Amino acid sequence: MSEQYEKGLKKLKEVTGGSGEAVVASFREIAPDLSRYIIEFPFGEIYSRPGLDIQKRQLVTVSSLVTQGDTAQALDVHINAALNVGLTPNEIIEAIIHLLPYAGWPKVQNGVNIAAKVFKDRNVAPVWENEK
Amino acid sequence: MSEQYEKGLKKLKEVTGGSGEAVVASFREIAPDLSRYIIEFPFGEIYSRPGLDIQKRQLVTVSSLVTQGDTAQALDVHINAALNVGLTPNEIIEAIIHLLPYAGWPKVQNGVNIAAKVFKDRNVAPVWENEK
Amino acid sequence: MSEQYEKGLKKLKEVTGGSGEAVVASFREIAPDLSRYIIEFPFGEIYSRPGLDIQKRQLVTVSSLVTQGDTAQALDVHINAALNVGLTPNEIIEAIIHLLPYAGWPKVQNGVNIAAKVFKDRNVAPVWENEK
Amino acid sequence: MSEQYEKGLKKLKEVTGGSGEAVVASFREIAPDLSRYIIEFPFGEIYSRPGLDIQKRQLVTVSSLVTQGDTAQALDVHINAALNVGLTPNEIIEAIIHLLPYAGWPKVQNGVNIAAKVFKDRNVAPVWENEK
Amino acid sequence: MSEQYEKGLKKLKEVTGGSGEAVVASFREIAPDLSRYIIEFPFGEIYSRPGLDIQKRQLVTVSSLVTQGDTAQALDVHINAALNVGLTPNEIIEAIIHLLPYAGWPKVQNGVNIAAKVFKDRNVAPVWENEK
Amino acid sequence: MSEQYEKGLKKLKEVTGGSGEAVVASFREIAPDLSRYIIEFPFGEIYSRPGLDIQKRQLVTVSSLVTQGDTAQALDVHINAALNVGLTPNEIIEAIIHLLPYAGWPKVQNGVNIAAKVFKDRNVAPVWENEK
Repeated sequence: MSEQYEKGLKKLKEVTGGSGEAVVASFREIAPDLSRYIIEFPFGEIYSRPGLDIQKRQLVTVSSLVTQGDTAQALDVHINAALNVGLTPNEIIEAIIHLLPYAGWPKVQNGVNIAAKVFKDRNVAPVWENEK
Repeated sequence: MSEQYEKGLKKLKEVTGGSGEAVVASFREIAPDLSRYIIEFPFGEIYSRPGLDIQKRQLVTVSSLVTQGDTAQALDVHINAALNVGLTPNEIIEAIIHLLPYAGWPKVQNGVNIAAKVFKDRNVAPVWENEK
Repeated sequence: MSEQYEKGLKKLKEVTGGSGEAVVASFREIAPDLSRYIIEFPFGEIYSRPGLDIQKRQLVTVSSLVTQGDTAQALDVHINAALNVGLTPNEIIEAIIHLLPYAGWPKVQNGVNIAAKVFKDRNVAPVWENEK
Repeated sequence: MSEQYEKGLKKLKEVTGGSGEAVVASFREIAPDLSRYIIEFPFGEIYSRPGLDIQKRQLVTVSSLVTQGDTAQALDVHINAALNVGLTPNEIIEAIIHLLPYAGWPKVQNGVNIAAKVFKDRNVAPVWENEK
Repeated sequence: MSEQYEKGLKKLKEVTGGSGEAVVASFREIAPDLSRYIIEFPFGEIYSRPGLDIQKRQLVTVSSLVTQGDTAQALDVHINAALNVGLTPNEIIEAIIHLLPYAGWPKVQNGVNIAAKVFKDRNVAPVWENEK
Repeated sequence: MSEQYEKGLKKLKEVTGGSGEAVVASFREIAPDLSRYIIEFPFGEIYSRPGLDIQKRQLVTVSSLVTQGDTAQALDVHINAALNVGLTPNEIIEAIIHLLPYAGWPKVQNGVNIAAKVFKDRNVAPVWENEK
């Protein structure tokens, strides 16, 4: 395997853990080059770049996915990744709610629903003070 | 509760009935402030504004949701709301079909599919003269 | 010309006046069938449909254009059309502002900017009571 | 039926086969004019145009649907259509992968997932040389 | 003015400085409530929330705006804001480039072009080691 | 330079000629890695793939750009590229018009406007039989 592939595989596991690896594997039969491109570019190149810390990177990804819509598979991977890189459930919900004025209420509601599923699978939850 | 929240809760029930309240309740555990923001801004502020009648407001919402895509949960609430504010099933279908040249055939087809589900749940249907 | 084309041309003038005709004319050299399709389908078919009054139709169009973004040429035509079919400047601004929770602040701001240009060209303006 | 309708029905069957006919039929009760518009415009007008061969036309459609997102029903029809007009499974996957830099990885991944389902139903598969 | 408005005005100045205030002022004549809503909700509510630090919030905003497209006015304000809250030109460019696999090359290129204009106006620039 | 970069530079020139090279150069100061990524991935990887002929590839790109909207800089490059790879002005207009039912009238109108500018710069034009 090329150096970029090796670097990407390492970064994929580090950031996305099992959920990202499963998605990559799911394409190996129908489109093996898609599996390779997922590893080589987003992870081998982009996520491996210095210059922006991993938590900030992860929030940039989550924000784009919530904003786009129809990204349920990718958002599942990337909300898991957000937890993996040390963002708390509260911070993740805050980031999605932050999008209310930018992406609108329906997309934010979709994003929070997906976060809820991931949190349930990971047995974590945000902790809120009593809000009035 | 604040005055804006009370106003919003009243407007939420008036416009969306049970379907809107259910969506708001679904977020109370994971993101209580999202529940609050749904009530306070779209309903406490926007839907409570004078200056545009409720049926026109509701069509602006439905049009935006169909155009955006990936808004099935919100469209379910808002097609119900369209019926609640006195738009007929025919008018609702007309409004979605009106989007063919603007949002394209696939989004309109998705929108009509969601309307069909809502109408079935509400036991209503559009009435068409024989079209050739 | 076909019957549908004649019907569409009549409806185009009625709804969009000069601004729509100018857009149609602008395509006659590079893509004459595009000019024909603008007349035949959105206007000859869709806008000519009974079942939804013209002001509601026009708001469905404006909502979709604001939501999509990058629709400055079409929005110019259609905000002019909104005035032509009897919607007031206030109602038009209300409809765009209504989109804040659905399309988000940036798209609404773009839409209001385009409305401002059209109103200036048409020498009309919304009239607001003192807002705090 | 009008001449355009007859032409469209013939083209719908030729290009989309059973999957397109099923979608058209699904709207006949709730929105009969939508069924008619699907037949008359995309197929009676657009797909019937000379000037661009059918395989190129089909790839333009698939590209737009993958790019838009939330087009699963239409993409199912149109990936079937891509096979019907003689594009190979490999060419279809290549076209979707081609969108990685334009529509982004999540939308391409969604598109490949839908292609996988269609290929499975059609008992076809792309054939890849060993890729490293 | 309401408490939320005061809080929002303070936050607007703190985060966006002059560019945000200019945008708010530009709507006062045509849509005074839009000016008020910009201050009250995105800034009075969302940006004033604890739970996510200001630099992370700002990157969530920038990511959404680049992803959406057609947000030049808002991106100008928010890239200025990114500088105001202490993100470096390098971090801002890194965040936009991070979107290559998510929003695609054209949107990222648009975003970098807008950043270039803002940096020029602010007399700042990213500093790159020699890249091969 | 890496092998992928060399391959990409060659393909960039071959497909996009001067317009693509100018865009790449425009980013060298503000984001040199963006220039590199444009060369390495879309051109070094994707456009260099066998399995789909260059004219089909180019139409997939144009379709995605027209569908997305707000892609004027990229569409300028890629309509030029469409001519460079042997598509005729007629075929290019046909491909954009083909998007009427998928991307909607406003986006197609924007796309045709951009094509018109490119054709004027290149001193070419589509040739239409008399259309009624």
